[in-house]
Amino acid sequence: MERRLFELVTQDGCAISPYAWRARFALASKKLHFQSCGIGFTEIAGVGEGRFRSLPVLQDGGRWVGDSWAIATHLDEHYPDGPPLFQSPAEYQMARFFEKWFLVEIVSTLFRIVVLDIHNRLKPEDRAYFRQSREQRLGQTLEAAHAAREEQLPLLEQKLQPMRLHLRESPFVGGSSPTYADYIAAGGFIWAGSVATLELLGPGDSILPWLRRALELLDDSGASPVLSGIPLGDRA
Amino acid sequence: MERRLFELVTQDGCAISPYAWRARFALASKKLHFQSCGIGFTEIAGVGEGRFRSLPVLQDGGRWVGDSWAIATHLDEHYPDGPPLFQSPAEYQMARFFEKWFLVEIVSTLFRIVVLDIHNRLKPEDRAYFRQSREQRLGQTLEAAHAAREEQLPLLEQKLQPMRLHLRESPFVGGSSPTYADYIAAGGFIWAGSVATLELLGPGDSILPWLRRALELLDDSGASPVLSGIPLGDRA
Repeated sequence: MERRLFELVTQDGCAISPYAWRARFALASKKLHFQSCGIGFTEIAGVGEGRFRSLPVLQDGGRWVGDSWAIATHLDEHYPDGPPLFQSPAEYQMARFFEKWFLVEIVSTLFRIVVLDIHNRLKPEDRAYFRQSREQRLGQTLEAAHAAREEQLPLLEQKLQPMRLHLRESPFVGGSSPTYADYIAAGGFIWAGSVATLELLGPGDSILPWLRRALELLDDSGASPVLSGIPLGDRA
Repeated sequence: MERRLFELVTQDGCAISPYAWRARFALASKKLHFQSCGIGFTEIAGVGEGRFRSLPVLQDGGRWVGDSWAIATHLDEHYPDGPPLFQSPAEYQMARFFEKWFLVEIVSTLFRIVVLDIHNRLKPEDRAYFRQSREQRLGQTLEAAHAAREEQLPLLEQKLQPMRLHLRESPFVGGSSPTYADYIAAGGFIWAGSVATLELLGPGDSILPWLRRALELLDDSGASPVLSGIPLGDRA
């Protein structure tokens, strides 16, 4: 059966969508193989006969599923033999809260740090759309955000404190093994860490051992990310 | 069977510990009756033959349980007939993360707003301990924190944003009915809202409808809190 993940990639084919990485983790946790179809923003309209406006999109045999949460739900419904992505409805809801926290506090901060780095890695035909939409969101030019990026580092350090405290008592956000909340956070760090041209976390940050553990889940998938902006050390 | 909750109260008998309110919610969700034993900080050593250093403490027949998480686990273990406080181990862990977020971002901000209000409501014999320990934590006098309290209100507004976004899509933090994460947050708002001498949330804040829904759980317990600092409107 054909299984393909349509996902955003850079000019050099690097998968950088935090939402697509959630899907990659979810597929890896179910031990499901897939083919990655890396495309640019301007190619989304060509996926699934124009049904989708955003990525990732999973084509699973004859089914087309857009949106990372819908992909997770689809995988739990259609592959019940593997470990469930969500142990209970309340865990699902708490993962939805976790996403809000991670987007509002962490992704928004990472975004200001790496926004120009993302731009510079995109396919040339994606850059005008990216610049226009992101400068509107930022209220400033990509270059102005980039020039002030180091001011965001202490904020990032501070905003990660709840997660850092939590990881003192648990190897993963969701317990003794990784859960969807871990995939949300790891996807965010992969997104920013893949393109960042400065180090996002200090070498002693207690977020790092957690991220190393989470990335182990991808080891068998043959698609471990290379994180220029995160000092993971030797993972071998 | 005798069931007693030892909890911190003010001079006028108002239960103000956010941790004790979690226990009250948990007991209410299991429909378990209990007797409240309100004491001051300086009376903790007299509870359970001096075994405890903090409140709340639940005496459940011959068992003595300290710490709000241990109380929750005790209730799930010994009263499995009622709805579980935690649907799955992952939900438990996510509630632990939620607590970290709520403490680091929300309680720390509320604390600076209400710290002098708490002091002024405590039993006279508790005030010296409270002042000394809290001024050390604050790095300033209670009066200095109080004088700057209005500066904290926009911060509180901003820091609640992840929860506010989440409650747009779910009636409770944990889903369609209240979960332990809701008890954590509601306990915090009851703690601060019981003593605050200014309004902590604006009258249009979307946190309010959630708090009203959460407080309904306590309606049958005969111990609904009175919140001077939160504009709940007419709950009748």
